[in-house]
Amino acid sequence: MSDFVKSELDKRKKAVFVKLNELDLDGFLVSSQPDIYYLTGFQSRDSYLLLTPKESFFITDFRYLHEARKSLSNLSIKIINGSLFKLVNKLCLSAKVTRLGFQAKNLLFGEYEKLSEQFQTKIRFIPTYDLIETLRQIKSPQEIKFIKKAVAITVGALNYAKKIIQPGMKEYELGLELKRFILERGAGAFSFDIIVASGPNSAFPHHITTKRIIKNHQPVLIDMGVEFKGYKSDLTRVFFLGKMTPVFSRIYNIVQRAQGDSIRGIRPGITISKIDSFARQYIAKEGYGRYFGHGLGHGIGLQVHESPHISSKNKNRLIPGMIFTIEPAIYLPGQFGIRLEDMVLVTKRGAQILSDGLD
Amino acid sequence: MSDFVKSELDKRKKAVFVKLNELDLDGFLVSSQPDIYYLTGFQSRDSYLLLTPKESFFITDFRYLHEARKSLSNLSIKIINGSLFKLVNKLCLSAKVTRLGFQAKNLLFGEYEKLSEQFQTKIRFIPTYDLIETLRQIKSPQEIKFIKKAVAITVGALNYAKKIIQPGMKEYELGLELKRFILERGAGAFSFDIIVASGPNSAFPHHITTKRIIKNHQPVLIDMGVEFKGYKSDLTRVFFLGKMTPVFSRIYNIVQRAQGDSIRGIRPGITISKIDSFARQYIAKEGYGRYFGHGLGHGIGLQVHESPHISSKNKNRLIPGMIFTIEPAIYLPGQFGIRLEDMVLVTKRGAQILSDGLD
Repeated sequence: MSDFVKSELDKRKKAVFVKLNELDLDGFLVSSQPDIYYLTGFQSRDSYLLLTPKESFFITDFRYLHEARKSLSNLSIKIINGSLFKLVNKLCLSAKVTRLGFQAKNLLFGEYEKLSEQFQTKIRFIPTYDLIETLRQIKSPQEIKFIKKAVAITVGALNYAKKIIQPGMKEYELGLELKRFILERGAGAFSFDIIVASGPNSAFPHHITTKRIIKNHQPVLIDMGVEFKGYKSDLTRVFFLGKMTPVFSRIYNIVQRAQGDSIRGIRPGITISKIDSFARQYIAKEGYGRYFGHGLGHGIGLQVHESPHISSKNKNRLIPGMIFTIEPAIYLPGQFGIRLEDMVLVTKRGAQILSDGLD
Repeated sequence: MSDFVKSELDKRKKAVFVKLNELDLDGFLVSSQPDIYYLTGFQSRDSYLLLTPKESFFITDFRYLHEARKSLSNLSIKIINGSLFKLVNKLCLSAKVTRLGFQAKNLLFGEYEKLSEQFQTKIRFIPTYDLIETLRQIKSPQEIKFIKKAVAITVGALNYAKKIIQPGMKEYELGLELKRFILERGAGAFSFDIIVASGPNSAFPHHITTKRIIKNHQPVLIDMGVEFKGYKSDLTRVFFLGKMTPVFSRIYNIVQRAQGDSIRGIRPGITISKIDSFARQYIAKEGYGRYFGHGLGHGIGLQVHESPHISSKNKNRLIPGMIFTIEPAIYLPGQFGIRLEDMVLVTKRGAQILSDGLD
């Protein structure tokens, strides 16, 4: 099941234990599913990972028992048979955990309350923030390989879309044809449902693919991503059917230049908000600032949206191995929208555009 | 946008305020997206609804602004521009909220902590459980109509599947063809990705559709649901290609009879765990108890899984207007699995099977 080499998983787990040590925690409850995959190489849902210095437990239900047993030979598999909260308490007591960390951004208040009740005064239950997500920001060579494969399949699909797109097709028909293309090429799943937004639909930043018929002399925005070995891609292109109108060309060129300005600015050590500002300032200078209301991009890997978030508020600095999208946009309500989204890898000297095989 | 009549939305909101009154709450933060849709008729993501006796606020971001303004004329629309937590605090102070309820099962611990920091001692922040979900258990005539439409489209798709399924097709090809059929018929989305599990894949309760080629003399399990006006369906059938083997027939008949035993037991007032036991006892009596490891069913409506959960632990009683699935199963690892899933409505006298148009 797992496609990670054991040494890589061991390295990740060790990095987590170093952090737990710094926080004086002798146990850690992992409730984020991508984090569990990151540490075990096993993809499941509704599962928990309980790390203690001596022994670690994979807590799941009936549905995942058989595969978990096969894949997770070095973990103790525990099946939830009744109350999850009692089970976690029992395991913690037997492992002599006194300070148990948990993931504040991945545990519901209700779960926190039920677990706290079980622990009473015996176990302190301590929130942590971004402990594993921070580690996940820096991709290993193997992770970069998986992401590149996901990007390559998506680039292939977008080039295919350009070839087959025809006035008269419905948005969802184009979407289904792209899904077929992608599934044939070995991607296991999609990062999210493919967005095909034609004509004025392209002006909605969150458009869902509809039955609208794609028409000539209109733009078609396609936003899609696939999953390969759990790693995601996310790319957006806008095509125009027929001869581009002058206003479309003008806006397209502004967005494209804004994207180039930001990508050229990427290098290790630069503050992330600056990367956002390069694109944003250019769009504002051209008079369209108020039509670009979202962040410039987002980290991507085991999740479609993860750290680092590329926005005007992020004062952290870029580090080699980070992978994120750069997706400036201009949305003109009632008319059309243009968003161009590529994925970049921060290298020692600058940026590598992962999606540059796109026509 | 909204397909609910205003009087229905008003009735729902009133029922919530009655409950808030009972709990002595003068404000309520709704963070469950289906609950927001239930109260406003507006489908969004990443939004919050803040209810106070005087005024109510819909809190969203840039992406939903235009549509929210059009659809939610009786709510004050607030855009998150910076910190959500500061905004909620400001709105609560201006509305003189002193005891604000929140949804413990729909708020992350991290969000709870950040909001508590803002509120300091001025606003008490009080967890509530299932306040709206309990109301949503009993479906109105309009809701039943929407669910019946979602079921009818799914029944049509399963009957179509039976016609077109052929040895040589890949699982995902059948899945895509069913999606096309469904989208053509006006369903807006899917309850979850269609599951097509052929041969031994059908023995995995959580199988994801793969490239496996569907073969003769093997079963094919299809589990699917669609969304109509936000309301979901969820049905499962198992087909057999060619002449059924004796062991397949035997297991199929056991699951079918177990399902019938439970459905015949449905009537207002009966304890839910009893409904679960009718199917479970029969499967156990036939010697397959350990191959049926999940609950018998789940409530369904705005969410695929919602209250009431049909399991051996649920000691609540059935009430007319509840809609849920009945899905007994037997999974024989390495061989095959059979799960039969129908949707039923509790009526005054018994149960109406919503999915009985299925061949």
